[in-house]
Amino acid sequence: MSRILITSGPTRQYLDPVRYLSNASSGRMGRAMAEAAIRAGHQVAVVSGPVELAYPDGVEVIPVVSTEDMLAACLRLFPECDGLIGVAAPCDYRPVQVAARKIRKNGSPLRLELVETPDIVATLAEIKKAQWMVAFALETEDRRMRAMQKLEQKSCDLIVVNGPAAMHSHETDVEVLDRSGCVVGRWAGSKETAAAGILQVIQERLIRGPA
Amino acid sequence: MSRILITSGPTRQYLDPVRYLSNASSGRMGRAMAEAAIRAGHQVAVVSGPVELAYPDGVEVIPVVSTEDMLAACLRLFPECDGLIGVAAPCDYRPVQVAARKIRKNGSPLRLELVETPDIVATLAEIKKAQWMVAFALETEDRRMRAMQKLEQKSCDLIVVNGPAAMHSHETDVEVLDRSGCVVGRWAGSKETAAAGILQVIQERLIRGPA
Repeated sequence: MSRILITSGPTRQYLDPVRYLSNASSGRMGRAMAEAAIRAGHQVAVVSGPVELAYPDGVEVIPVVSTEDMLAACLRLFPECDGLIGVAAPCDYRPVQVAARKIRKNGSPLRLELVETPDIVATLAEIKKAQWMVAFALETEDRRMRAMQKLEQKSCDLIVVNGPAAMHSHETDVEVLDRSGCVVGRWAGSKETAAAGILQVIQERLIRGPA
Repeated sequence: MSRILITSGPTRQYLDPVRYLSNASSGRMGRAMAEAAIRAGHQVAVVSGPVELAYPDGVEVIPVVSTEDMLAACLRLFPECDGLIGVAAPCDYRPVQVAARKIRKNGSPLRLELVETPDIVATLAEIKKAQWMVAFALETEDRRMRAMQKLEQKSCDLIVVNGPAAMHSHETDVEVLDRSGCVVGRWAGSKETAAAGILQVIQERLIRGPA
């Protein structure tokens, strides 16, 4: 039995009290990974951005809004976990200035300066000890090459690559690559089926001893 | 029996295939208004941005993504309707440039130029004939004054004012103002209760003859 940290869903970076930058991650793949891990007898903590779904019973859920919140929760939980599955699609840019009041329209263009938010998986990689790490990458082009770059940058053991069609859908189409660039798994169909397959690869390759 | 057009939910303005600008409107107030109208025996069409809820049986639902899509659907439906209830929180800025591919992070700030999207209620006001119009306003300060400005700008008969706490919540706290600035209704509590009250005001003041 391992203790597994899963990040799930999108995050939001607010411009003002009403408007935010985000993406269409639904949390369904994160939920499916949590369900597969719980079923296999693991202890699961899910740090989740705002989603409209319920995580399985038995999962410890830590709701967050922004990428900074998600990172803070992960930094707190990760040291006590055996591994990380980074399924979330954290919003990776934030407005430099956040208005305290709703920005009023005045007919003029609004110029927004955005800076990158911290990379959650890469930050956790810097403090990891014996933990294993699996990241998800959403790529619209050169999928394998870019995923391998991310695997390197984030010091992951495995990376799961999918395309934008997976967002806000019940279906997905994923490949799992290892550190040598080999495709060690591939699933198309329901997110539940893909999650069960990905968890099996994680168990066989990263979780030592019986699950 | 009237034919009522309701807009509901948020809209999204994409920067690239993954990232978008939006807000936390859940569509719950739009669904509650649709339910109240259906129960009162009206015909209801809902033009809805991306939401994770189901509208009541009997409602014609037209799903849209962007503010431009929402406007196009409304322009098509409005001429055949007797009135409009604009509950949606359309994203009111859009990026001038939309990237065809996912914008890659490179460590530098991202400068985004945003311009206003068309105002749906104000645009429909320009083509309205005998139709009545009710708008919702989300205000964080000077609520009544700003709501009255919007009522004027959008040529509405009534305006429903609420605060950002209503977003993504099951509860709301609304006031209905008429063209003279009088508070003609006020509800705090479930969105269903508020919607029933708002619909009653609409029936009494705007829908001539028996409902």
